[in-house]
Amino acid sequence: MQICKVIGHVWSTKKEAALEGFKFMVVQEKYPADGPVFVAADLVGAGTGEEVLVVSGSTARCAAKSSGARQDEAPIDAAIVGIIDTCETEKQKKA
Amino acid sequence: MQICKVIGHVWSTKKEAALEGFKFMVVQEKYPADGPVFVAADLVGAGTGEEVLVVSGSTARCAAKSSGARQDEAPIDAAIVGIIDTCETEKQKKA
Amino acid sequence: MQICKVIGHVWSTKKEAALEGFKFMVVQEKYPADGPVFVAADLVGAGTGEEVLVVSGSTARCAAKSSGARQDEAPIDAAIVGIIDTCETEKQKKA
Amino acid sequence: MQICKVIGHVWSTKKEAALEGFKFMVVQEKYPADGPVFVAADLVGAGTGEEVLVVSGSTARCAAKSSGARQDEAPIDAAIVGIIDTCETEKQKKA
Amino acid sequence: MQICKVIGHVWSTKKEAALEGFKFMVVQEKYPADGPVFVAADLVGAGTGEEVLVVSGSTARCAAKSSGARQDEAPIDAAIVGIIDTCETEKQKKA
Repeated sequence: MQICKVIGHVWSTKKEAALEGFKFMVVQEKYPADGPVFVAADLVGAGTGEEVLVVSGSTARCAAKSSGARQDEAPIDAAIVGIIDTCETEKQKKA
Repeated sequence: MQICKVIGHVWSTKKEAALEGFKFMVVQEKYPADGPVFVAADLVGAGTGEEVLVVSGSTARCAAKSSGARQDEAPIDAAIVGIIDTCETEKQKKA
Repeated sequence: MQICKVIGHVWSTKKEAALEGFKFMVVQEKYPADGPVFVAADLVGAGTGEEVLVVSGSTARCAAKSSGARQDEAPIDAAIVGIIDTCETEKQKKA
Repeated sequence: MQICKVIGHVWSTKKEAALEGFKFMVVQEKYPADGPVFVAADLVGAGTGEEVLVVSGSTARCAAKSSGARQDEAPIDAAIVGIIDTCETEKQKKA
Repeated sequence: MQICKVIGHVWSTKKEAALEGFKFMVVQEKYPADGPVFVAADLVGAGTGEEVLVVSGSTARCAAKSSGARQDEAPIDAAIVGIIDTCETEKQKKA
C-alpha cells in the first residue's frame, strides 16, 4: 500500500459504463516527497488534503468488491482503502 | 489509473489474432510532465490530443471484458477507459 | 520479494472493513539504500528495526490466504512474509 | 503495451519444463530512448531489429493461451504480441 | 523476464509456513548494470554467480505450480525459472 495525499478530483463524462458511481481522486505519493501523481477510486469518503492508504493493481478490484461497491470486479487499478490517522516512523521519532 | 495524453497511433498487421479490432493509441503520462510513453487499447473513442484515464495490468483485460468489447479476456495490459473533462488539483488552484 | 526494513506503523480508523485485524507496518526497501517507502500488512509478527521479506501485488493476497489470516482474499497489495536471519551476498563477502 | 526493439536472443538449456518451445528474445524499450532491457517470449515470429509490441505481467500468460501456444497458462511474464508497421506520434509529425 | 545474476542467499526461520522448502536467492538485474537487487525463489538449482531468467508477479506463483514444486499457488512474487547459457545481443556483436 502506498501512503498518498489526496490533491484533487477528476471528472470524466465519456467513460466505461462500469466506472459509473465511483469518485475519482487525484493522489500523490508521499514517499518520496512530491512522488508520482495518479488517480484512485475512493472507497472510504476521503477528502482533499487527507493522507490515505492506496492499493494498486488487481487488489484495487478486490477492494471494490469486498467493500460492497460492486458484485463483479470493477475495471479500476487503484483505490483509496483507508484514511490515515497517524503514521509513526523511526525518522519522525528522531525529529 | 494514470492521467495520460493521447499522442499517436500504432499499426500492426502481423499480430496476435486476439488483438484484432482494437485501436492502439500511443499515450504519454502527464505526471511527471513528459512522462513514460506506452501503447493502450482504446475502449472509449479517444482522439489524439485528448487527456484520458488509462488502466494497466490485469485491469485492462477486465475493462475490455466489462466494456463488452470481448467476452473472453483480451491479451492487453493497458486500456483507455475514460476521456477527462476536467482535472482539478490543489496546485492548479494555487495558480 | 523485496528485502525491507520495518521503520514504523500506520493507524487508520476509517478504512475498508476487510482490512480489520491486519497490522500495517511502514517498510523501506534496502536495495537501493534508503529505497522506496510503503506500507505492508504484517503476517509474521515483525517489529520495528527488523529486516523482512515483503511480497507485493496479488501475491500479498495469496499470502494472507495461505497464512490462514483470511479465507477470502484480503484487499492488500503488500505483505511481510518472513523475518530475515541472515542475508549473505557477494559484496558482503568482499567487505 | 510497450514499444520495444528486438536486440537479441537468450538460450537456456536448464529451465522449467513449461518453458520448452518458446523462443526468448531480448528486447529494449524505445521510450525512453535506450530504455530498460528484458526478455520476452516471441508469439509472432519477430526478428532481431524489428519494432514490436510487448505485453507484460499476467497478460503475457493470457496472450500465450489465446495464441494457441498453450492450453494452460505458461510461466512467462512478457510476450511479443505484434510487429509494428508504423508508429505515428505528434512529435514525429513536428519533425 | 529479467536477466539477473545470482549474488547471494537469504535465510529466514520465522516465515509463512507456505514458504517452507523454497531456496531464496538474492539476485541483481543486469540491465541496467548493477540494477535493482531483490529475492527470488529458485526453481532450477541455480548457484551464486550464475546468470538466470527471473519471472515476477503472479507468474512466479504460476511457475512454482507448473514446476511441480507446489499444487496450490505459493506466496512468492519472483522465481528463477532458467539458467542462461548464452545471451547474444546487437551490442555484444558490435564489441
